[in-house]
Amino acid sequence: MTPDILFKNITAVTMNTDQPAESQVQEHVHVAITGRKITHMLPSVSNEAAALEKSAKRIINGTHKVLMPGLYNTHTHAGMCLFRGYANDRNLEDWLFNYIFPAEAKLTPDLLKTGTTLAIAEMLQSGTVAFSDMYCYMDKIAESAHEAGILANISNGIIAFESAAEGVYQFKNDKVYQQVKTAIENFGGKNENNDGRVKIDASIHGCYTSFPPAWYQVTDFAAKHNLGLHVHLSETKTEQETTRKNFNTTPTKIFNQHGVFNQSTTAAHGVYLDDEDIAILAEKNVTIAHNPISNLKLASGLSPVTKLIDAGVNVSLGTDGVSSNNSHDLFEELKMATVNGAKAQGRAHESGQIKVGYDADIIMLDFNTPRQTMCYDPILNLAYSTNGSDVELTMCRGKILYEKGEFTTIDIEKTLHEARSAKSIFLS
Amino acid sequence: MTPDILFKNITAVTMNTDQPAESQVQEHVHVAITGRKITHMLPSVSNEAAALEKSAKRIINGTHKVLMPGLYNTHTHAGMCLFRGYANDRNLEDWLFNYIFPAEAKLTPDLLKTGTTLAIAEMLQSGTVAFSDMYCYMDKIAESAHEAGILANISNGIIAFESAAEGVYQFKNDKVYQQVKTAIENFGGKNENNDGRVKIDASIHGCYTSFPPAWYQVTDFAAKHNLGLHVHLSETKTEQETTRKNFNTTPTKIFNQHGVFNQSTTAAHGVYLDDEDIAILAEKNVTIAHNPISNLKLASGLSPVTKLIDAGVNVSLGTDGVSSNNSHDLFEELKMATVNGAKAQGRAHESGQIKVGYDADIIMLDFNTPRQTMCYDPILNLAYSTNGSDVELTMCRGKILYEKGEFTTIDIEKTLHEARSAKSIFLS
Repeated sequence: MTPDILFKNITAVTMNTDQPAESQVQEHVHVAITGRKITHMLPSVSNEAAALEKSAKRIINGTHKVLMPGLYNTHTHAGMCLFRGYANDRNLEDWLFNYIFPAEAKLTPDLLKTGTTLAIAEMLQSGTVAFSDMYCYMDKIAESAHEAGILANISNGIIAFESAAEGVYQFKNDKVYQQVKTAIENFGGKNENNDGRVKIDASIHGCYTSFPPAWYQVTDFAAKHNLGLHVHLSETKTEQETTRKNFNTTPTKIFNQHGVFNQSTTAAHGVYLDDEDIAILAEKNVTIAHNPISNLKLASGLSPVTKLIDAGVNVSLGTDGVSSNNSHDLFEELKMATVNGAKAQGRAHESGQIKVGYDADIIMLDFNTPRQTMCYDPILNLAYSTNGSDVELTMCRGKILYEKGEFTTIDIEKTLHEARSAKSIFLS
Repeated sequence: MTPDILFKNITAVTMNTDQPAESQVQEHVHVAITGRKITHMLPSVSNEAAALEKSAKRIINGTHKVLMPGLYNTHTHAGMCLFRGYANDRNLEDWLFNYIFPAEAKLTPDLLKTGTTLAIAEMLQSGTVAFSDMYCYMDKIAESAHEAGILANISNGIIAFESAAEGVYQFKNDKVYQQVKTAIENFGGKNENNDGRVKIDASIHGCYTSFPPAWYQVTDFAAKHNLGLHVHLSETKTEQETTRKNFNTTPTKIFNQHGVFNQSTTAAHGVYLDDEDIAILAEKNVTIAHNPISNLKLASGLSPVTKLIDAGVNVSLGTDGVSSNNSHDLFEELKMATVNGAKAQGRAHESGQIKVGYDADIIMLDFNTPRQTMCYDPILNLAYSTNGSDVELTMCRGKILYEKGEFTTIDIEKTLHEARSAKSIFLS
């Protein structure tokens, strides 16, 4: 076997859940990538390691570098980065209704694709190897992810207020239906592009923006096409109150009563959850995508993460920030961004850990820098002193997508130019 | 006049306090540096700008870049970076008494110099042009700052428990005295190195670790040598209680009663302050170095920053983090890190703003990146989306000290190596 890439003499933070926590930091190892797989992890001082050095096509010196599973961002609206800093200093309602909605109305499929590519560039640059998106023109988002080489679960949440209330909602007539059909045709089923890297999800925006007849149609569609489901769940107090008024129960319970969670589900936020809700989420294997930065920004509160984990719920991280400093269990926290994220996306069997036979969805961090010196314990540095700027290399399925400021799949100057050009459109 | 460096067609966030806030973002300007000074700031489309392009020795293309005053870190113990992540997961007392104090006992002057140089490299890389340090072997810290070219106010706080209580404390017999004398000889008075870049401060560690006879001797010495003063003030509840017990008043009032604030003073922390304390600090022109990250980490509470600013106290930023997200006044916050920091260090007349005639103590940020695209308002991006990794160039007094990963005054590989080598010493 000829490895394509050999990380030589590196510190691997494996997140390998087969091993006890204290074995998850492996110093002085050689890690080999062949095709899309991690094929070897060996002590650097060994005959096997020496043999790998002779056969490897490329050797990357890992001295003072750290290799870890790449990060999973399990709840994003990536293309919204086009509005970063746009009318930011307004209250939420003013911002949403007078700025964002009018600006979104000006989005074209091509613009949205540019915005998504821009977001992917930012993610790759800061060590994210996979994202779960919920936004308009999902067929274009899937295209962007496909071209960039990143792992992605793509969806667009249906919103069905009035027509659902009138009882005439037909998913087949929803514009989302055409998008999801196109996306499946291009990246699902027996399509040649369907290697599982870009997955298509079904999505219900939330229980307060649609009604049971719509939920049945979307989940039926998801079951038929074997799709995961992405929803917003219990994000705000208003959502809780509206649901209480409409259904006399909680968002978790009303979704569960209507069989929504029978599909493999990622539920974003989960801020307002009672003990019964938590038990349901655990029983139904729902992943909670925890969005601490977003929740704090909008003063929505914080998800009861410790309770969820104790109940056995899979908690992953999402949105604006992929790192949280609220937990005192460092491994738990790093796992949310890696192992749990892979679980959320249905990739836990092949991704999210550094393990022989697993996909090389991994990142390399430069610790040969002032900000990472000293390093008494890589886990402590990763938890307290690391951010995206430490990422030197990002690899999805064995392919280097980002290395030292350069992108291999994204024309970054073109993307930056196109994104900036869009500014005048939104301001007009 | 031949500029040494011309930033061509750049966005300057000037912090120029002569101008109204809305004029402090200047787009499409040429900014010229000659020697240590900012000598020109002109519209890019002008005859003068064209002339500068012809005469400048080096032109840096400023398209999609932002120029702003460099950051002031006005309260540090820089050399402690040697202990970054060392036994981090202990409670404060265990950490301090069983790990840090024994490790500090192993510090040599040379090790401390290496640690300080490492900290300076990290600061330069993340846009800091000046720091105010309080730590042991201040003569070596001054050397390190001198060689690295950064602006620095160096001090070592006297601690005088027992001998002061016995009434026999003599500053002249304190090891700090020799350090400060050496530092003044090398960088103060009529010494050829004394161009004001490295300043020597006097320092009292805190009112709870020494007694009035020591304060008089240190402040007399400071007055005689025209030195500023650096103290810890009202950091913790314990400090308040001890001071109440010893002096029946607050740290601010007891220092003021003994004339400590007659010297130009930077007081770190200021978490526990009553209205009378705040009035005293305003009257005596004491700068409060606000350390939000440190205060939050140690659960000490937060300084009443808004009250202080309303009372006219100069508030600057310090320690672990140079940016805080607690304030809603963005300009105020950016000013704390620049204008107010320069004021704290006695440099407001020549540094801390982008203004013709001011020292070129400035940084250039790369906004031609995914993370800084879009940019609807540079101030919003600087406040919400910027960190040290956006810094492309750091300049002190017109000299480029850091540019795109490279240091011009620091042998970074040597420093990293020496710092790492020290690990085994502390662990032994």
